[in-house]
Amino acid sequence: MKEIVLRPIGWVERVEGETTEFHILPELVAGLEGLSPGEKILILFWMDRADRTRLEAHPRGDPARPLRGVFATRSPHRPNPIGATTVELLSLQGNRLWVRGLDAWEGTPILDIKIEAKGPETA
Amino acid sequence: MKEIVLRPIGWVERVEGETTEFHILPELVAGLEGLSPGEKILILFWMDRADRTRLEAHPRGDPARPLRGVFATRSPHRPNPIGATTVELLSLQGNRLWVRGLDAWEGTPILDIKIEAKGPETA
Repeated sequence: MKEIVLRPIGWVERVEGETTEFHILPELVAGLEGLSPGEKILILFWMDRADRTRLEAHPRGDPARPLRGVFATRSPHRPNPIGATTVELLSLQGNRLWVRGLDAWEGTPILDIKIEAKGPETA
Repeated sequence: MKEIVLRPIGWVERVEGETTEFHILPELVAGLEGLSPGEKILILFWMDRADRTRLEAHPRGDPARPLRGVFATRSPHRPNPIGATTVELLSLQGNRLWVRGLDAWEGTPILDIKIEAKGPETA
Protein backbone atom coordinates (compact mmCIF):
# COMPACT_ATOMS: atom_id res chain seq x y z
CA MET A 1 0.00 0.00 0.00
CA LYS A 2 1.22 3.45 -0.65
CA GLU A 3 2.88 5.68 1.88
CA ILE A 4 1.06 8.56 3.52
CA VAL A 5 2.82 11.83 4.23
CA LEU A 6 1.85 13.97 7.21
CA ARG A 7 2.94 17.50 7.94
CA PRO A 8 2.69 18.39 11.65
CA ILE A 9 0.18 21.15 12.41
CA GLY A 10 2.15 22.27 15.47
CA TRP A 11 4.36 21.12 18.34
CA VAL A 12 4.50 20.88 22.12
CA GLU A 13 6.22 24.03 23.34
CA ARG A 14 6.34 23.57 27.10
CA VAL A 15 5.26 21.11 29.79
CA GLU A 16 4.70 22.28 33.37
CA GLY A 17 3.22 19.71 35.69
CA GLU A 18 -0.11 18.65 34.20
CA THR A 19 -0.29 21.65 31.87
CA THR A 20 1.00 21.45 28.33
CA GLU A 21 1.36 24.47 26.07
CA PHE A 22 1.40 23.81 22.38
CA HIS A 23 1.59 25.99 19.31
CA ILE A 24 -0.19 25.66 15.99
CA LEU A 25 1.42 26.86 12.76
CA PRO A 26 0.31 30.47 12.21
CA GLU A 27 -1.13 29.66 8.76
CA LEU A 28 -3.53 27.12 10.35
CA VAL A 29 -4.97 29.36 13.06
CA ALA A 30 -8.32 29.67 11.24
CA GLY A 31 -8.81 25.98 12.03
CA LEU A 32 -9.08 26.77 15.76
CA GLU A 33 -12.09 29.09 15.37
CA GLY A 34 -14.88 27.93 17.66
CA LEU A 35 -12.82 26.10 20.28
CA SER A 36 -13.63 27.20 23.84
CA PRO A 37 -11.85 26.78 27.16
CA GLY A 38 -13.36 23.98 29.21
CA GLU A 39 -14.03 21.79 26.17
CA LYS A 40 -12.69 18.27 25.85
CA ILE A 41 -10.57 17.86 22.74
CA LEU A 42 -8.84 14.88 21.18
CA ILE A 43 -5.20 15.49 20.36
CA LEU A 44 -3.36 13.29 17.88
CA PHE A 45 0.40 13.58 18.15
CA TRP A 46 3.48 11.85 16.85
CA MET A 47 5.48 9.81 19.36
CA ASP A 48 8.78 10.37 17.61
CA ARG A 49 10.88 8.37 20.07
CA ALA A 50 8.86 5.18 19.65
CA ASP A 51 10.26 1.95 18.23
CA ARG A 52 8.25 1.31 15.06
CA THR A 53 9.55 -2.25 14.64
CA ARG A 54 8.07 -3.65 17.86
CA LEU A 55 4.91 -5.78 17.65
CA GLU A 56 4.76 -6.79 21.34
CA ALA A 57 4.77 -4.76 24.54
CA HIS A 58 4.08 -5.13 28.25
CA PRO A 59 0.69 -3.58 29.09
CA ARG A 60 1.17 -0.19 30.81
CA GLY A 61 4.93 -0.69 30.38
CA ASP A 62 4.90 -3.02 33.40
CA PRO A 63 7.49 -5.81 32.89
CA ALA A 64 5.56 -7.97 35.38
CA ARG A 65 2.69 -8.21 32.87
CA PRO A 66 3.04 -10.73 30.06
CA LEU A 67 3.78 -9.41 26.58
CA ARG A 68 0.80 -8.70 24.33
CA GLY A 69 0.45 -7.55 20.76
CA VAL A 70 0.98 -3.77 20.55
CA PHE A 71 -2.51 -3.32 19.03
CA ALA A 72 -3.92 -4.78 22.28
CA THR A 73 -2.11 -2.11 24.36
CA ARG A 74 -1.62 1.67 24.50
CA SER A 75 2.16 1.30 24.19
CA PRO A 76 3.86 4.10 22.23
CA HIS A 77 5.82 1.40 20.39
CA ARG A 78 3.88 0.41 17.25
CA PRO A 79 4.26 0.69 13.46
CA ASN A 80 2.56 4.11 13.29
CA PRO A 81 3.18 5.69 16.71
CA ILE A 82 0.29 8.15 16.75
CA GLY A 83 -0.74 9.16 20.27
CA ALA A 84 -4.45 9.85 20.85
CA THR A 85 -5.41 11.55 24.11
CA THR A 86 -8.54 13.41 25.14
CA VAL A 87 -7.60 16.46 27.19
CA GLU A 88 -9.24 19.53 28.67
CA LEU A 89 -8.64 22.79 26.86
CA LEU A 90 -7.65 25.29 29.56
CA SER A 91 -7.17 28.36 27.39
CA LEU A 92 -6.14 29.55 23.97
CA GLN A 93 -4.62 32.73 22.64
CA GLY A 94 -3.88 33.16 18.94
CA ASN A 95 -1.96 30.06 17.87
CA ARG A 96 -1.16 28.96 21.45
CA LEU A 97 -3.20 26.42 23.43
CA TRP A 98 -2.90 25.20 26.99
CA VAL A 99 -4.34 21.82 27.90
CA ARG A 100 -4.41 19.53 30.91
CA GLY A 101 -3.56 15.84 30.64
CA LEU A 102 -1.40 15.56 27.53
CA ASP A 103 1.52 13.35 28.44
CA ALA A 104 3.90 14.24 25.61
CA TRP A 105 7.48 15.53 25.58
CA GLU A 106 8.46 19.07 24.60
CA GLY A 107 8.99 19.21 20.85
CA THR A 108 6.44 16.48 20.12
CA PRO A 109 4.75 17.11 16.73
CA ILE A 110 0.98 17.67 16.87
CA LEU A 111 -0.94 16.03 14.01
CA ASP A 112 -4.58 16.90 14.58
CA ILE A 113 -7.15 18.31 16.99
CA LYS A 114 -10.83 17.27 17.06
CA ILE A 115 -13.68 17.95 19.40
CA GLU A 116 -14.68 14.97 21.49
CA ALA A 117 -16.93 12.43 19.77
CA LYS A 118 -20.56 12.68 20.82
CA GLY A 119 -22.31 9.42 20.15
CA PRO A 120 -21.82 7.44 16.94
CA GLU A 121 -19.41 9.13 14.69
CA THR A 122 -19.25 9.65 10.99
CA ALA A 123 -16.00 10.05 9.16
CA MET B 1 8.86 20.85 10.55
CA LYS B 2 9.82 17.67 8.91
CA GLU B 3 7.43 15.34 7.17
CA ILE B 4 6.25 12.11 8.75
CA VAL B 5 5.78 8.99 6.66
CA LEU B 6 3.13 6.41 7.56
CA ARG B 7 2.71 2.96 6.10
CA PRO B 8 -0.84 1.62 6.50
CA ILE B 9 -1.12 -1.48 8.72
CA GLY B 10 -4.18 -2.71 6.81
CA TRP B 11 -7.31 -1.67 4.96
CA VAL B 12 -11.10 -1.88 5.07
CA GLU B 13 -12.10 -4.93 3.07
CA ARG B 14 -15.88 -4.91 3.26
CA VAL B 15 -18.74 -2.92 4.77
CA GLU B 16 -22.11 -4.57 5.41
CA GLY B 17 -24.56 -2.47 7.33
CA GLU B 18 -22.97 -1.60 10.67
CA THR B 19 -20.32 -4.30 10.35
CA THR B 20 -16.92 -3.55 8.87
CA GLU B 21 -14.38 -6.22 8.02
CA PHE B 22 -10.79 -5.13 7.82
CA HIS B 23 -7.52 -6.91 7.19
CA ILE B 24 -4.13 -6.38 8.77
CA LEU B 25 -0.92 -7.01 6.82
CA PRO B 26 0.10 -10.64 7.48
CA GLU B 27 3.54 -9.58 8.78
CA LEU B 28 1.89 -7.52 11.55
CA VAL B 29 -0.45 -10.21 12.88
CA ALA B 30 1.63 -10.68 16.07
CA GLY B 31 0.48 -7.18 17.03
CA LEU B 32 -3.11 -8.43 17.43
CA GLU B 33 -2.24 -11.00 20.13
CA GLY B 34 -4.42 -10.45 23.18
CA LEU B 35 -7.38 -8.71 21.50
CA SER B 36 -10.72 -10.30 22.41
CA PRO B 37 -14.19 -10.07 20.90
CA GLY B 38 -16.42 -7.71 22.88
CA GLU B 39 -13.60 -5.27 23.60
CA LYS B 40 -13.77 -1.62 22.64
CA ILE B 41 -10.88 -0.61 20.40
CA LEU B 42 -9.80 2.70 18.95
CA ILE B 43 -9.20 2.59 15.21
CA LEU B 44 -7.12 5.26 13.50
CA PHE B 45 -7.64 5.36 9.75
CA TRP B 46 -6.76 7.56 6.80
CA MET B 47 -9.64 9.49 5.25
CA ASP B 48 -8.12 9.51 1.81
CA ARG B 49 -10.94 11.43 0.12
CA ALA B 50 -10.71 14.40 2.46
CA ASP B 51 -9.75 17.90 1.35
CA ARG B 52 -6.53 18.69 3.23
CA THR B 53 -6.60 22.39 2.33
CA ARG B 54 -9.83 23.23 4.16
CA LEU B 55 -9.61 25.00 7.53
CA GLU B 56 -13.37 25.55 8.02
CA ALA B 57 -16.32 23.18 7.98
CA HIS B 58 -19.98 23.03 8.94
CA PRO B 59 -20.39 21.04 12.19
CA ARG B 60 -21.75 17.54 11.42
CA GLY B 61 -21.68 18.49 7.73
CA ASP B 62 -24.92 20.43 8.22
CA PRO B 63 -24.93 23.54 5.96
CA ALA B 64 -27.49 25.16 8.27
CA ARG B 65 -24.81 25.38 10.97
CA PRO B 66 -22.32 28.23 10.74
CA LEU B 67 -18.78 27.42 9.62
CA ARG B 68 -16.24 26.66 12.34
CA GLY B 69 -12.54 25.89 12.33
CA VAL B 70 -11.98 22.25 11.36
CA PHE B 71 -10.14 21.60 14.66
CA ALA B 72 -13.40 22.51 16.44
CA THR B 73 -15.33 19.83 14.48
CA ARG B 74 -15.10 16.13 13.57
CA SER B 75 -15.11 16.95 9.84
CA PRO B 76 -13.00 14.61 7.69
CA HIS B 77 -11.62 17.70 5.96
CA ARG B 78 -8.46 18.83 7.81
CA PRO B 79 -4.72 19.06 7.15
CA ASN B 80 -4.02 15.51 8.41
CA PRO B 81 -7.28 13.61 7.83
CA ILE B 82 -6.84 10.86 10.42
CA GLY B 83 -10.13 9.35 11.53
CA ALA B 84 -10.36 8.19 15.15
CA THR B 85 -13.32 6.01 16.12
CA THR B 86 -13.92 3.72 19.07
CA VAL B 87 -15.67 0.56 17.91
CA GLU B 88 -16.69 -2.82 19.26
CA LEU B 89 -14.57 -5.77 18.17
CA LEU B 90 -17.05 -8.43 17.06
CA SER B 91 -14.60 -11.15 16.08
CA LEU B 92 -11.16 -11.81 14.71
CA GLN B 93 -9.61 -14.63 12.75
CA GLY B 94 -5.96 -14.55 11.73
CA ASN B 95 -5.39 -11.15 10.14
CA ARG B 96 -9.12 -10.39 9.69
CA LEU B 97 -11.20 -8.33 12.13
CA TRP B 98 -14.89 -7.53 12.22
CA VAL B 99 -16.05 -4.44 14.10
CA ARG B 100 -19.28 -2.55 14.63
CA GLY B 101 -19.46 1.21 14.22
CA LEU B 102 -16.59 2.08 11.90
CA ASP B 103 -17.95 4.49 9.33
CA ALA B 104 -15.25 4.20 6.66
CA TRP B 105 -15.33 3.33 2.98
CA GLU B 106 -14.06 0.08 1.53
CA GLY B 107 -10.37 0.41 0.73
CA THR B 108 -9.75 2.92 3.54
CA PRO B 109 -6.19 2.52 4.93
CA ILE B 110 -5.98 1.54 8.62
CA LEU B 111 -3.16 3.29 10.51
CA ASP B 112 -3.36 1.95 14.06
CA ILE B 113 -5.40 -0.01 16.61
CA LYS B 114 -5.31 0.60 20.36
CA ILE B 115 -7.33 -0.67 23.28
CA GLU B 116 -9.64 1.93 24.74
CA ALA B 117 -8.04 4.38 27.17
CA LYS B 118 -8.81 3.60 30.80
CA GLY B 119 -8.35 6.72 32.88
CA PRO B 120 -5.46 9.14 32.43
CA GLU B 121 -3.18 7.97 29.75
CA THR B 122 0.54 7.91 29.32
CA ALA B 123 2.13 8.03 25.92
